[in-house]
Amino acid sequence: MSLSVFQSKPNSSTKGKKPFIFRISSYWLACIPLVAIILITWNTAAVAQDAKPLTPEDVQGALNTTWVLVAAILVIFMNAGFAMLEGGFCRRKNVVNVLAKNLLVFALTTIAFWAIGFSVMFSGVDSGFAGNEGFFLSSSNPAVYGLERYPQGLPVAVFFLYQAAFAGTAATIVSGAVAERIRFVSYAIFSLLLTAIAYPIAGHWIASQSGWLNVQGFHDFAGSTMVHSVGGWAALVGAILLGAREGRYTDDRVNPMPGHNMSMATLGCFILWIGWFGFNGGSELAANEAVPYIVLTTNLGGVSGALAATLTTWLRDDQPDLSMIINGTLAGFVGITAGTYVVDYFGAVFIGLVAGIMVVFAVAILDNLKIDDPVGAIAVHLVCGIWGTLAVGLFANPNNLLQRGTENAIAGLFYNGGVNQLISQIIGIAAVGAFMVIFSIATWLLIKLVFGLRVPLKAEIDGLDISEHGMEAYNGFVVESDMIGTNLNSSDS
Amino acid sequence: MSLSVFQSKPNSSTKGKKPFIFRISSYWLACIPLVAIILITWNTAAVAQDAKPLTPEDVQGALNTTWVLVAAILVIFMNAGFAMLEGGFCRRKNVVNVLAKNLLVFALTTIAFWAIGFSVMFSGVDSGFAGNEGFFLSSSNPAVYGLERYPQGLPVAVFFLYQAAFAGTAATIVSGAVAERIRFVSYAIFSLLLTAIAYPIAGHWIASQSGWLNVQGFHDFAGSTMVHSVGGWAALVGAILLGAREGRYTDDRVNPMPGHNMSMATLGCFILWIGWFGFNGGSELAANEAVPYIVLTTNLGGVSGALAATLTTWLRDDQPDLSMIINGTLAGFVGITAGTYVVDYFGAVFIGLVAGIMVVFAVAILDNLKIDDPVGAIAVHLVCGIWGTLAVGLFANPNNLLQRGTENAIAGLFYNGGVNQLISQIIGIAAVGAFMVIFSIATWLLIKLVFGLRVPLKAEIDGLDISEHGMEAYNGFVVESDMIGTNLNSSDS
Amino acid sequence: MSLSVFQSKPNSSTKGKKPFIFRISSYWLACIPLVAIILITWNTAAVAQDAKPLTPEDVQGALNTTWVLVAAILVIFMNAGFAMLEGGFCRRKNVVNVLAKNLLVFALTTIAFWAIGFSVMFSGVDSGFAGNEGFFLSSSNPAVYGLERYPQGLPVAVFFLYQAAFAGTAATIVSGAVAERIRFVSYAIFSLLLTAIAYPIAGHWIASQSGWLNVQGFHDFAGSTMVHSVGGWAALVGAILLGAREGRYTDDRVNPMPGHNMSMATLGCFILWIGWFGFNGGSELAANEAVPYIVLTTNLGGVSGALAATLTTWLRDDQPDLSMIINGTLAGFVGITAGTYVVDYFGAVFIGLVAGIMVVFAVAILDNLKIDDPVGAIAVHLVCGIWGTLAVGLFANPNNLLQRGTENAIAGLFYNGGVNQLISQIIGIAAVGAFMVIFSIATWLLIKLVFGLRVPLKAEIDGLDISEHGMEAYNGFVVESDMIGTNLNSSDS
Repeated sequence: MSLSVFQSKPNSSTKGKKPFIFRISSYWLACIPLVAIILITWNTAAVAQDAKPLTPEDVQGALNTTWVLVAAILVIFMNAGFAMLEGGFCRRKNVVNVLAKNLLVFALTTIAFWAIGFSVMFSGVDSGFAGNEGFFLSSSNPAVYGLERYPQGLPVAVFFLYQAAFAGTAATIVSGAVAERIRFVSYAIFSLLLTAIAYPIAGHWIASQSGWLNVQGFHDFAGSTMVHSVGGWAALVGAILLGAREGRYTDDRVNPMPGHNMSMATLGCFILWIGWFGFNGGSELAANEAVPYIVLTTNLGGVSGALAATLTTWLRDDQPDLSMIINGTLAGFVGITAGTYVVDYFGAVFIGLVAGIMVVFAVAILDNLKIDDPVGAIAVHLVCGIWGTLAVGLFANPNNLLQRGTENAIAGLFYNGGVNQLISQIIGIAAVGAFMVIFSIATWLLIKLVFGLRVPLKAEIDGLDISEHGMEAYNGFVVESDMIGTNLNSSDS
Repeated sequence: MSLSVFQSKPNSSTKGKKPFIFRISSYWLACIPLVAIILITWNTAAVAQDAKPLTPEDVQGALNTTWVLVAAILVIFMNAGFAMLEGGFCRRKNVVNVLAKNLLVFALTTIAFWAIGFSVMFSGVDSGFAGNEGFFLSSSNPAVYGLERYPQGLPVAVFFLYQAAFAGTAATIVSGAVAERIRFVSYAIFSLLLTAIAYPIAGHWIASQSGWLNVQGFHDFAGSTMVHSVGGWAALVGAILLGAREGRYTDDRVNPMPGHNMSMATLGCFILWIGWFGFNGGSELAANEAVPYIVLTTNLGGVSGALAATLTTWLRDDQPDLSMIINGTLAGFVGITAGTYVVDYFGAVFIGLVAGIMVVFAVAILDNLKIDDPVGAIAVHLVCGIWGTLAVGLFANPNNLLQRGTENAIAGLFYNGGVNQLISQIIGIAAVGAFMVIFSIATWLLIKLVFGLRVPLKAEIDGLDISEHGMEAYNGFVVESDMIGTNLNSSDS
Repeated sequence: MSLSVFQSKPNSSTKGKKPFIFRISSYWLACIPLVAIILITWNTAAVAQDAKPLTPEDVQGALNTTWVLVAAILVIFMNAGFAMLEGGFCRRKNVVNVLAKNLLVFALTTIAFWAIGFSVMFSGVDSGFAGNEGFFLSSSNPAVYGLERYPQGLPVAVFFLYQAAFAGTAATIVSGAVAERIRFVSYAIFSLLLTAIAYPIAGHWIASQSGWLNVQGFHDFAGSTMVHSVGGWAALVGAILLGAREGRYTDDRVNPMPGHNMSMATLGCFILWIGWFGFNGGSELAANEAVPYIVLTTNLGGVSGALAATLTTWLRDDQPDLSMIINGTLAGFVGITAGTYVVDYFGAVFIGLVAGIMVVFAVAILDNLKIDDPVGAIAVHLVCGIWGTLAVGLFANPNNLLQRGTENAIAGLFYNGGVNQLISQIIGIAAVGAFMVIFSIATWLLIKLVFGLRVPLKAEIDGLDISEHGMEAYNGFVVESDMIGTNLNSSDS
């Protein structure tokens, strides 16, 4: 292994074997034309490289790549966070099902987004609506995906990974709202279509340089609308079409169905917490001094959400409710996601506080409407996603550059648009909402027609773990239903 | 979205919208004076940037920022580690309470440290005692916080995030020692005061360039004293003032109250493990070749602690005790934290071994003194924090530069002070200890006066989850107390 | 604290204390000769630094160091993943034992690899077989370990950390296969010998620039053979010599012994998922544009494994099996690990799909052979490790450079060796397999002779938690065996 690590040396970047090409083999002859081309290419490249010393731009390009890769890893780790959160908030008898969905969804997303979604979202650099080139990452020209050539632009691979992780998040949001009664196959197919088609189209509008919402001034830095509301709308439609869990609403009463494992849900919240730093901080798509500013406003938003939700439930119920501390934290993060780059610290705190209060009431209102969302995904991602997107029109602060103590992070200047910016934000929210509602109704109904949406009643009562997977999440722990004739406190199974 | 990612291009760092400023609106007129100023600023900045090509110093600055940000994320992830560790070591009936405290504490810390703590700790660059400027990160001049301007110095945002994560750690240490009987509100208020006032004052002494302990030669690289002992003293005073858990000590016997979930506690240990790499490695405040050296001595310290504690319990009890393997690991990490930069590999191993042995006996001694610490926080963080700080005076090695195979990491040279360095270390330990004991007694007693410290006896017996939060951590799993008339092995609830 | 962070300023990289050296002490006189040498060294270094401005190469060196450090942290976090995976797949009565093994194994590995293993693996730069210099990282000359001097090469500390994390992975793989019946001390000693001797010897063959397999053209980019098969062979021999768990195979029937906690196992899979990005992406040993390409093919391999295993069990059993989704994901990752750098996207998907199918059948075949592997480690790591290594000979694609849209990542060209490459791969697989089988038989039998391999039958039936550690993993949850005369569903304890 040659352990010199500079990328500019053509023979140093891998485990320096002797080029296989120079060893004797009867297969040589067939390879001569290929080898000739290869050698020419290689020599040219090598010469070009020897002639070009490493520049600061090269190193900055490698640094940008590395940071966005680390951010992508953090966002992919959010899959673990969502799995723990949703699994913990569900009842013991449905845990395997929730975990299996969360484990598979990023697998499905990666393939769907690789085959179709990424091209729909980022190619079509002259189209306001959608792209249609370079499927399966087949183009070697980064410009097809709106990227400059490395090191000026990011390598396609890292940009894809980062965006695929985002697409996966949108799909995972749906998972929680439809949990404990949806058929496994139906959710899998919806996820595929969401990440192959719907998310990329809405994403093109917002994130492609030619996207019509982008052009008209819509600002959604890291995806309060693009990711969270998109997932939230799909979740809302899904939860309505599925109906509530058996026994959830009887005689106008909401019967509590407490999560089976708050340790797991809390761990999920902590994992999402650090994941969000990659989610928002990586959206800068570069490693510069604006990144920690973004991460700091993100953190201020999240903790303000946690505090506001804690105080709200404390005042209302005389007790701080752990599941609301968790959802308040996430609400704050969702809220700050659109404006993280353009609000000042006080703006971030205010956005988080409002999100933390809103999520408590949104959960109650949805229950009043008998829209059953086992984990609060609609309240967190849809309601606070809308709030966060609106808040950009209210709190974008031209003075934030001073907060950063830096001269060249002046993007905030552009967003002090007052009513005009607010109108841009409302147009974006409404357009994405209308599109997602139509897509979701059509897709969920089509899936219902072909596969059915909901498991049979017996399967739901037995639990999806047994009925859909033939296994239980926990073995060696006594379940209440096992105990016939003994005295029990709880009654959720 | 413009996907060129160089920070030196003024219009490339965000999602390249058309400047809102150039679109027509009736609000234009009111904005003219502001816009004029903005445009001038912007043009100047843009010109300056075009004239200034990217230098290696710029890129190194961005790299330093990125590494410290990653380290901050790792330290913030330690909140998850502490939550899992403390939750796992507590009894099932108090888990929600422990998790809620751990989730809220970093929220409280962020706000308290943003508003007050950070300024107390890092402003006042001429004061030996404390700072008093730039509250709420309101100053745009990094020198107020002792920082050079970026890219020579770190951006204020990342330095704040990193330091806020440290402050949160100090508060979290307290949480474990007072668990299972403290009132939720009392702990929250103590955390606020600790991170707004006490931690920053002690921190100023040690980490500010003008801090009196720093000036007199006290060396505490990543906070064996500044974080771990500070939290440990507050934990010790809190545990004494609260008294032991009901039933813990009867007739001079220690009644075991085993943790409810060792899987969770072990996960916490693993998360803290990688968090510590950010904790110590990030304290270099730069990305250079010393960072992996620091991380390696850190790892050697931790694993030596694990091995020593394992062997100690194995010899004493004939069986290796998992909770002591966990606490031995953490003890090794706490021990190596002060000297990580200045000891050689053998020094790191020795420090860890001693810490791993000490923690086993410290736990036993505290139980003998009837000081009840459900998770062993005092033994781990206070006892081994003191040991680690002392060890700098014993093991700092002028030859460690050779170990690193590098010429410019010569800091170790300065610490070969023999008895003088040892005296410096003792002064620091004693000063911080005296301050923290006085602060903690005063604050805990004040809180006791206003809110009370301890939950009522019935609440403690029922469990804090029900009495303070009205919910249980686990649903669908039978609890022993539910089983009347059946044959049970364990008896902790 | 001086907060300027450039490494090139000799006095700025730590907490800027006054040099202790200039303070007066009675110990001065004894130190004069030492101090003289130190000052000369220091001044020379300082002068050299002042004369040498920061270059792009310096910054790239720091960036490479930082990325490999982050990758090492991700790989070390895999210990948490393996602990959760193996713990979750085991029965409740053996959890403490599994966790204790997983927590200790990286402690043992770090020490064994520091003392001996690293030198065996990377020194001996002229030897094809093994190195024997620089034990305990005692050499200050990086060339001893095959490294160029920083910043051209990686600092020894980070290269060691990264490689130690790999060694730990090999040992952890064994842990799962021998779980639930091995003596704690016997596993600990095997781990020590594996990471001190066997893994480093096989590693030298493959990863050292003079290693005989490396020289003959064997390509195993990130260790399908070097880590996964090495661990897998040791696991296979261990599982055979230990025999099956009591009651596992009766009357030619396989009695299911379902894992006690699928939430925990799934979390483990997610942690391993992101860990693998460090495992493969860090093996580039540099931060350049090839890294995200590697991470992307890695991800495609893993998700394809997940999908293939899901569909295979769905078709076979009419239900998707969560434990097979988990093992399919890991199988895909193991499979892609050898070729991650040299296959194109479709190749990665194909390798993952085959691995995901293979793992399902391999688990069944091993059960037919009555080789009892509680977590499926042999099927995942040995079978798919062999498959992945072979696949390099089948799918290495000279055109992958086009996929990357980059000119200088031309390594793929060298691997289009057709049958010759395939033969190289087979030689490597066979040589490592033969060596590891011999080593494992000899070592396991020697340990059996001295300590015994297996716990007594009563201890196995009671569970290793009680018999080996005297504690239970979960307290406050009723176990089935506690319930005499009540009606139970499951029967694993």
